[in-house]
Amino acid sequence: MTLFKQATIIGLGLIGSSVARALRENGVCEIIVACDASPECLDKVAELKLADKTEADLQKAVDGSDLVILATPVGTYGDIGQAIGQALDFGATVTDVGSVKGCVLKALSGVLPEHVHLIPGHPVAGTEQSGPEAGFASLFAGRWAILTPPQDADPEAVEKLKKMWEAFGSKVEIMTPEHHDLVLAITSHIPHLIAYNIVGTAHDLEGVTDSEVIKFSAGGFRDFTRIAASDPTMWRDVFLNNKEAVLEMLGRFTEDLTALQRAIRWGDGDALFNLFSHTREVRRQIIEAGQDEEAPDFGRPHEIPPEKQAKD
Amino acid sequence: MTLFKQATIIGLGLIGSSVARALRENGVCEIIVACDASPECLDKVAELKLADKTEADLQKAVDGSDLVILATPVGTYGDIGQAIGQALDFGATVTDVGSVKGCVLKALSGVLPEHVHLIPGHPVAGTEQSGPEAGFASLFAGRWAILTPPQDADPEAVEKLKKMWEAFGSKVEIMTPEHHDLVLAITSHIPHLIAYNIVGTAHDLEGVTDSEVIKFSAGGFRDFTRIAASDPTMWRDVFLNNKEAVLEMLGRFTEDLTALQRAIRWGDGDALFNLFSHTREVRRQIIEAGQDEEAPDFGRPHEIPPEKQAKD
Repeated sequence: MTLFKQATIIGLGLIGSSVARALRENGVCEIIVACDASPECLDKVAELKLADKTEADLQKAVDGSDLVILATPVGTYGDIGQAIGQALDFGATVTDVGSVKGCVLKALSGVLPEHVHLIPGHPVAGTEQSGPEAGFASLFAGRWAILTPPQDADPEAVEKLKKMWEAFGSKVEIMTPEHHDLVLAITSHIPHLIAYNIVGTAHDLEGVTDSEVIKFSAGGFRDFTRIAASDPTMWRDVFLNNKEAVLEMLGRFTEDLTALQRAIRWGDGDALFNLFSHTREVRRQIIEAGQDEEAPDFGRPHEIPPEKQAKD
Repeated sequence: MTLFKQATIIGLGLIGSSVARALRENGVCEIIVACDASPECLDKVAELKLADKTEADLQKAVDGSDLVILATPVGTYGDIGQAIGQALDFGATVTDVGSVKGCVLKALSGVLPEHVHLIPGHPVAGTEQSGPEAGFASLFAGRWAILTPPQDADPEAVEKLKKMWEAFGSKVEIMTPEHHDLVLAITSHIPHLIAYNIVGTAHDLEGVTDSEVIKFSAGGFRDFTRIAASDPTMWRDVFLNNKEAVLEMLGRFTEDLTALQRAIRWGDGDALFNLFSHTREVRRQIIEAGQDEEAPDFGRPHEIPPEKQAKD
């Protein structure tokens, strides 16, 4: 199902390189051009044969492409838009995969020419790993991709982009950037923030050694370290570019946590039990919706080979 | 390696039933007696053949046992101790698997006779599931078990209990109950509290539907719902019985979170980046220590069969 002639991916990290693989595996475009600021990354992309062409120069990279996908941290969009604006083909579609959407129009609408279709997007998928080696074609399968087209977007261009994500195995939802940023603040940004935070808190304790934190992490902490191992630049930019919604959600989170703190201090077992018994239902719904595995403990293997036994 | 003649397990949930399976699979005792307040649970235990004998009466259950393992929520220990005290065999060992240790001596030392060995314990292992069907023999393999014997504990009795956990595949660490409760507050109790909390916060939002929270949970939120699906009664009792350490750690967590909040509000990208780039190292150490899997995204499968595709 060839939807595009030539697609340029800017930024070949986990997501960008997964898009490259998914484009090729599903025959979505004829030619894939990879562009990255890091020469090492481009070398790796060439070595892994993820693209038909690697190109360090932004303007040359987008030349002749009818699809340009930004897959760099969202804080870079303004500069990239400035650089590629005049080099974009007439009628090309420019999209992205960033975790914040309100900032995309702000950063790009002034610098891109009127003849291109700017349709921001966000696949809600990922792993904690980074770089072109970490990507894989099926990353988006079974996950949702969100598009936040401007009100006056060309319906045909939106439809083509929708078809691309569907070819990758995603379901597509259209919403406003404002609503996207609110929803993702609670389903993604705040979870990352508190995961990063607790790993930092644990590291700074004077009465508990780092080695103890590691050894006894199976009590729950280790789950948090997975998302706290995500790309630092990407996540810095998420928080700087979704300030309003993140602060709003963080305020609610802290308010609720303060109520729990009070319940613990005053020994209000009923308040604790009530919350704890409602949350199980949410887990069940996530599994039913195909958004997580049913296997207990994330399906972690529990038969541990001798060489992988607990170590100090 | 028969260490005990007859072991009584009180409470056949996830942990108790896993202990039953591990005792039998590793030939640690000759006879296993299962005792539970729920007749349905005991029926299930009999059906699954997890014990040689099921017994609803606490006194009858411990009669003739040289090992008694409490595997009920820690809030029940006082009443159970009161009930079994006079029925315990001379020189029997009484231990437990609870997630809080300071409260065990407080609840039991007054009600158990002097001739028994009270040696509290805690295997740092588990899944989010509950009940006798959820347990399995290898749950403790590769994980740490902590023992918090009183200062005057019989070294031989401690050694036997250590051998039992080692037979289950665990490594054993001895520490004071106070230190245990501090370490587990940060590696287990606070992670559970903030996971429960964010699931509650997400559920209560008026601008974001529950269905959206479910659909877009792959952004990070779903990791939290796993531990927020843990047993509500057990966790209520943990927080009520480790109040001091939990409040102390929660204070530090909130302090750190407030600093992050301020960094976001004032656009201090360096502060965010610095924290985010340190936390990856903790993840690496946990994997090296054999306490989590290396596979990205917890090894979740990414080839989704059609019947498990994303659903509304």
